Amino acid sequence: MPGQSAGRHVGLVTPTTVRLFTPDDPLRLARGGRLDQVDVAYETYGQLTAAKDNAVLVCHALTGNAHAAGFHPGAAKPGWWDHLIGPGKAIDTDRFFVVCPNLLGGCQGTTGPGSLDPATGRTYGLDFPLLDMADFVAVHRRLMAHLGLTRLLAAVGGSLGGMQVLEWSLSHPEDLANAVIVAASSRLTAENIAFSAVAREAILRDPGFHDGHYAEAGLTPESGLSIARMMAHITYLSGEALSAKFGRAAQQVGQQAGFGVDFAVESYLRHQGEVFSDRFDALSYLYLSRVMDYFDPFARPQATAAIAAARPGVLVIAFTTDWRFDRRHSLRIVARLHGAGVPVTYRCVPSASGHDSFLLPIPRYTDTVGAFLDRAWEVIRA
Amino acid sequence: MPGQSAGRHVGLVTPTTVRLFTPDDPLRLARGGRLDQVDVAYETYGQLTAAKDNAVLVCHALTGNAHAAGFHPGAAKPGWWDHLIGPGKAIDTDRFFVVCPNLLGGCQGTTGPGSLDPATGRTYGLDFPLLDMADFVAVHRRLMAHLGLTRLLAAVGGSLGGMQVLEWSLSHPEDLANAVIVAASSRLTAENIAFSAVAREAILRDPGFHDGHYAEAGLTPESGLSIARMMAHITYLSGEALSAKFGRAAQQVGQQAGFGVDFAVESYLRHQGEVFSDRFDALSYLYLSRVMDYFDPFARPQATAAIAAARPGVLVIAFTTDWRFDRRHSLRIVARLHGAGVPVTYRCVPSASGHDSFLLPIPRYTDTVGAFLDRAWEVIRA
Repeated sequence: MPGQSAGRHVGLVTPTTVRLFTPDDPLRLARGGRLDQVDVAYETYGQLTAAKDNAVLVCHALTGNAHAAGFHPGAAKPGWWDHLIGPGKAIDTDRFFVVCPNLLGGCQGTTGPGSLDPATGRTYGLDFPLLDMADFVAVHRRLMAHLGLTRLLAAVGGSLGGMQVLEWSLSHPEDLANAVIVAASSRLTAENIAFSAVAREAILRDPGFHDGHYAEAGLTPESGLSIARMMAHITYLSGEALSAKFGRAAQQVGQQAGFGVDFAVESYLRHQGEVFSDRFDALSYLYLSRVMDYFDPFARPQATAAIAAARPGVLVIAFTTDWRFDRRHSLRIVARLHGAGVPVTYRCVPSASGHDSFLLPIPRYTDTVGAFLDRAWEVIRA
Repeated sequence: MPGQSAGRHVGLVTPTTVRLFTPDDPLRLARGGRLDQVDVAYETYGQLTAAKDNAVLVCHALTGNAHAAGFHPGAAKPGWWDHLIGPGKAIDTDRFFVVCPNLLGGCQGTTGPGSLDPATGRTYGLDFPLLDMADFVAVHRRLMAHLGLTRLLAAVGGSLGGMQVLEWSLSHPEDLANAVIVAASSRLTAENIAFSAVAREAILRDPGFHDGHYAEAGLTPESGLSIARMMAHITYLSGEALSAKFGRAAQQVGQQAGFGVDFAVESYLRHQGEVFSDRFDALSYLYLSRVMDYFDPFARPQATAAIAAARPGVLVIAFTTDWRFDRRHSLRIVARLHGAGVPVTYRCVPSASGHDSFLLPIPRYTDTVGAFLDRAWEVIRA
């Protein structure tokens, strides 16, 4: 149970699901439309203080989920950010109460396009409304209220999660004493959008997509989703990392050349695609990636007025070999916040692992997050 | 007709097709197997001298064809390298006799996997034998013989074409007085292979691929081929070029957000995919891209022995923003040849246009090729 672990991990955790919006109190969406029922899956680690001043909210990336740390009963592998979250770790569950929700539009416990539409009894499919980064924040704010939290010690997120933290910092900075934005972007480039467009095209063109109603038809666009993931996966790594890991090694010595997995890197990618299409939903991929494409918060009028007044602590982290969101994306965030008079700590961490560095146990990265939160905690407690 | 043009272009040209291998004289392939019938489509521009000393052979890239320069009757657009080939241009058809063949395994006139297998009367499909860079050279050498050429003033190629020129320079340097190798590689990286692997996966998984016998079945894997091209196209450009050309512009002002072509860059990419799937064959894509994956000529024993003895002139050109084959690929070729005592001229040309720079009218690039060939011509004529 949360906070009971004596080891390096938070121990066994179980996900919780809560209904946060209902027909009497629907979620009104930023781009129009509403959702009459929103369930949110989340996990918590550590204990909330009586003063409720030690809550850290963790925002996951495009294909992440609520299981950020510790082990589910019987599982061999811990949550996706277990390197960062646990007793004595950067996000220290001996001191902090950590909450990680699956985001709106996801497919891992929180309501999304693959959920049943209560109005029709069918899965939403492409009838699910278009989402916006602001909707993710609205749902997470409701979860805060549900948990009795009025202010977070910090919101922390990587990639899409970092973008969500940025949105939150700009739109409701009063909620956050601190924000940690890792390997994120305030505005995708044409190339970023292009890669996501091809991934979506692979999904949409798969006959198994069935106009988004694949689940009812007993189909799945697994080929399209695999291809989307294989391609995206290349962009999450660095050329350097792929060369170091695979080089030009043959998958099997002496095998006949052909169009299968001749090279080890091909076998790896195909495996990534297969595993992914088993665990992730194609509709969620479409909806969440589109939110990233449209995200451009600094373009709004008075974009930085609220954060300039609230002045939360902000830490922005980039990685040297991340080319999906290269350091210029992070520097743009830093520059815009500096321009508004908001103090920002910026680190570009050396790493050979590309964009996915934010998921890896890189000491200069985890130590930077840890030191930032240590200081944040000291300030709050002072 | 070749050489008759008074303007900037070589004028009207018509492709020629010749049968270069027959059952009595088959093409024996480097990886085993043979082809009992090989037809080759090619174009020529300019006039061959009586001394037959002014022939320049042009090798095209993965999806190129024999139509490198001038206009086909009625066509609005000239050949793919018309910037480089023509009267007074870098590859000057007032002085040189230029030959451009479609390569083996292609789909634009030369025998490939989409051709009819004379033994069965069906298209080869995946029964077509695996090819090797050496096979491309073998076919082009036979074409040289057919045209009465014993030595080329130069072989010139970009991307896969440059790789073919490298293969030729190493295996039969006596054929070439000079070699021009543009935006090429002597050995693909794991990332390079990974991108091609995803492209192939998109083709192979398209139900329209029909195990390679789509033509007989009246099908076509156009979705897979489009997706392959869209993805590859991103890697042929630079992020900088995509940003400059499209930025985050909407495709249509005020349109509803969705999963179609919301952004201009999406419309562009989709168009690229559609045009490509109309003009190119999926099987050729599989076969030719695989040749690139396996190409690693410097790994052969005595790889540079022949070129070290023959010492042709070599020009290697890279482009600053090419990240599909970044300059390290070119520098590796330069280093290996230097190491063998072969003099090499190397230029890394500033360009914002990524890998596709080799197809564009960039003066510092075309001037470099022109000056190199001028000097080559002076040396031959001296």
